[in-house]
Amino acid sequence: MKKTPPIREPKADKASVRRHNLSLVLRTVHDAGETTRAAVAARVGLTRAAVSSLVEQLMEQGFLVESGKTFSGQAGRPGTVLKPAGTGPAGLGVEINVDYVSVCVVDLAGTDRVRVAEPLDNRAAEPAEVLARAAGLAAKALRSAAERELRPTGVRLALPGLVSYGTVQQAPNLGWNRVPADKLFGEALAGRWPGQAELPVTSDNEANAAALAELWFGALGDVRSFLYLTGEIGVGGAIVVDGELLRGAHGFAGEIGHLPVDADGPLCRCGSRGCLEQYAGQSALLRAAGAAGVEELARAADAGEPRAVAAVEEAGRMLGLALSGAVNLLDPEAVVLGGIYPRLMPRLGPAVDAELARRVVSGLWTPAAGRLRPASPATPASRGAAAFVMRQVLDDPLAYTP
Amino acid sequence: MKKTPPIREPKADKASVRRHNLSLVLRTVHDAGETTRAAVAARVGLTRAAVSSLVEQLMEQGFLVESGKTFSGQAGRPGTVLKPAGTGPAGLGVEINVDYVSVCVVDLAGTDRVRVAEPLDNRAAEPAEVLARAAGLAAKALRSAAERELRPTGVRLALPGLVSYGTVQQAPNLGWNRVPADKLFGEALAGRWPGQAELPVTSDNEANAAALAELWFGALGDVRSFLYLTGEIGVGGAIVVDGELLRGAHGFAGEIGHLPVDADGPLCRCGSRGCLEQYAGQSALLRAAGAAGVEELARAADAGEPRAVAAVEEAGRMLGLALSGAVNLLDPEAVVLGGIYPRLMPRLGPAVDAELARRVVSGLWTPAAGRLRPASPATPASRGAAAFVMRQVLDDPLAYTP
Repeated sequence: MKKTPPIREPKADKASVRRHNLSLVLRTVHDAGETTRAAVAARVGLTRAAVSSLVEQLMEQGFLVESGKTFSGQAGRPGTVLKPAGTGPAGLGVEINVDYVSVCVVDLAGTDRVRVAEPLDNRAAEPAEVLARAAGLAAKALRSAAERELRPTGVRLALPGLVSYGTVQQAPNLGWNRVPADKLFGEALAGRWPGQAELPVTSDNEANAAALAELWFGALGDVRSFLYLTGEIGVGGAIVVDGELLRGAHGFAGEIGHLPVDADGPLCRCGSRGCLEQYAGQSALLRAAGAAGVEELARAADAGEPRAVAAVEEAGRMLGLALSGAVNLLDPEAVVLGGIYPRLMPRLGPAVDAELARRVVSGLWTPAAGRLRPASPATPASRGAAAFVMRQVLDDPLAYTP
Repeated sequence: MKKTPPIREPKADKASVRRHNLSLVLRTVHDAGETTRAAVAARVGLTRAAVSSLVEQLMEQGFLVESGKTFSGQAGRPGTVLKPAGTGPAGLGVEINVDYVSVCVVDLAGTDRVRVAEPLDNRAAEPAEVLARAAGLAAKALRSAAERELRPTGVRLALPGLVSYGTVQQAPNLGWNRVPADKLFGEALAGRWPGQAELPVTSDNEANAAALAELWFGALGDVRSFLYLTGEIGVGGAIVVDGELLRGAHGFAGEIGHLPVDADGPLCRCGSRGCLEQYAGQSALLRAAGAAGVEELARAADAGEPRAVAAVEEAGRMLGLALSGAVNLLDPEAVVLGGIYPRLMPRLGPAVDAELARRVVSGLWTPAAGRLRPASPATPASRGAAAFVMRQVLDDPLAYTP
């Protein structure tokens, strides 16, 4: 019988243990929001002296600050309250979607300190031009961040397509194929933001970034395994299992928008037929409703206008059909609908739930169980992308010392 | 920003370190098949003396033996060759499917030492009677195992349904609902095998057990993330990610047989409509082909008999349709078809691959890439279930000391 799980026996020398413990202490303060040295020591199982030494280094290097408050715990002397620094390390997230660009800067606590967004028809321009426009918006956000004494450690792009190794392999709704987004964006930003020459740029699928935002900043409570759908021009998706993204063998997992719901349905931009996004994507939905925009559609549906109601309910039925397959496959704790869907929930939600209740084999899906949820408004993909950059700092602060 | 990943700081006292190292050494010998103390020491980063002491304990307790051979490595003295014991600890796996029961006993190396199987129409009997028959077959296997000086440490059942906490919550093709399989089987076995009163019984979904058998004993090479489908009366499925089963929030993940492929298709035993197994399950396939059994169908298809070919190709098209959705969601390295499907591959495989090539968005699916594979013949679910019991021994041998 081959292949037991990989054997991990990390060599633990003194320097690497301290490096690990710096992250441990920083993450503990981060998770608590505000806490004391004594509480950190109790939480992580290190001595009070060791924690004090680690905290001192983290304060010197600008990761932690004392809030000025003191806290009297159940035992011992009152302690000075620590919190993550609100200046210094920051993450920059840039969502480039089909019809808008959105930029967010978060601080070490994950708070979104700068937000800039612009509607842009990104189908009408070449990839390099779209990325240059996005870099322009990012530079604007970086100027605001600098005024707030925030120093970005990296940029993460969120894109509506299959992303691997810095390249958008395929983004059907943008018409992109094999676009080296990291490189093009980095070059464009360097011209617009000379202050910081070598800001590392990485990229991810936008639904992945939105799902992380929901996990970290949303209203999911204890839920750590869920399926995330985002209704945009296309329909994106992401899978979170035990608090981690399921990325797949090539980084392409989550493409629920291209789950076939009718074998012989209309041709999709991906080359297949009858994909979910041909029924539940924004374009399909507005076309079916005869509406010019999502807000107009939502108001008409809320007012009971028959064509709008029928369009939303049909999209819900198709979403429910695709989600039934996905739920039978993945058995998630919840399904979260983001993008344009939260605004349409009054009519959309019941239609989706009805299909799930009929088709999920476990019999666990009842509308009353509340497993279908709208995404929280505080969780755009740009914030998830920015916070991803901050996670890397939390995981190894020494690597980001000024 | 809440919720960094859980902080794990295990207390490492001397006894628990030794306990961990016993497992580490046992797993290292297991993975190698045959190896020496010096090679183990080099592999795990412990001293030769420490490894010798651990090996001595594992030999005394019957987990390891010396093979009698010696091995001259690149450096140092020739070493005596160690291997897992072929007697002592054993795992018992029992697959109870719709039309047969299959039992397997594996030794510590994972070798299947005893196999017993019987065709049984398990739809025609009450659950308690089915489990009692299976216990009878298991007792027969246990007698053979005892003659080979194998001492089972546990039993694992593999069942075609949704299994959680020892209970079959739902097995549509058996007609079971909330059947406490562990308990009923344990009681029935105790009466038939008084030699060992308290053999712990656990259970799992049969596709999960078959997927583990494929992972551990199949011909997947380096593939550690795959989707597994098993064609039986129903269609079962399992998802393996990085060498681990993806189980889902309630243990029900993998139910690809109930992925809807036609919203308004025929009613399924699960209560939904148009589920994959209504097109690609054994019953549907034989009905469409007008064949009495799988072997008859396979021969007719091989001979080019039109009705058989059409039935297999239509099943392949529907499998391909459902799998396209699953592959778009999960981005696995491979898809493995087990149960009745390997025998039908000459006609089935191309039909499945054609749908995948059309519908998988990444454009990475080409029939030439060989990502669709038949399950290996050496990997029945009963062997996976038995080996699962053995994995528990490898992970903590001290807990299974005689």
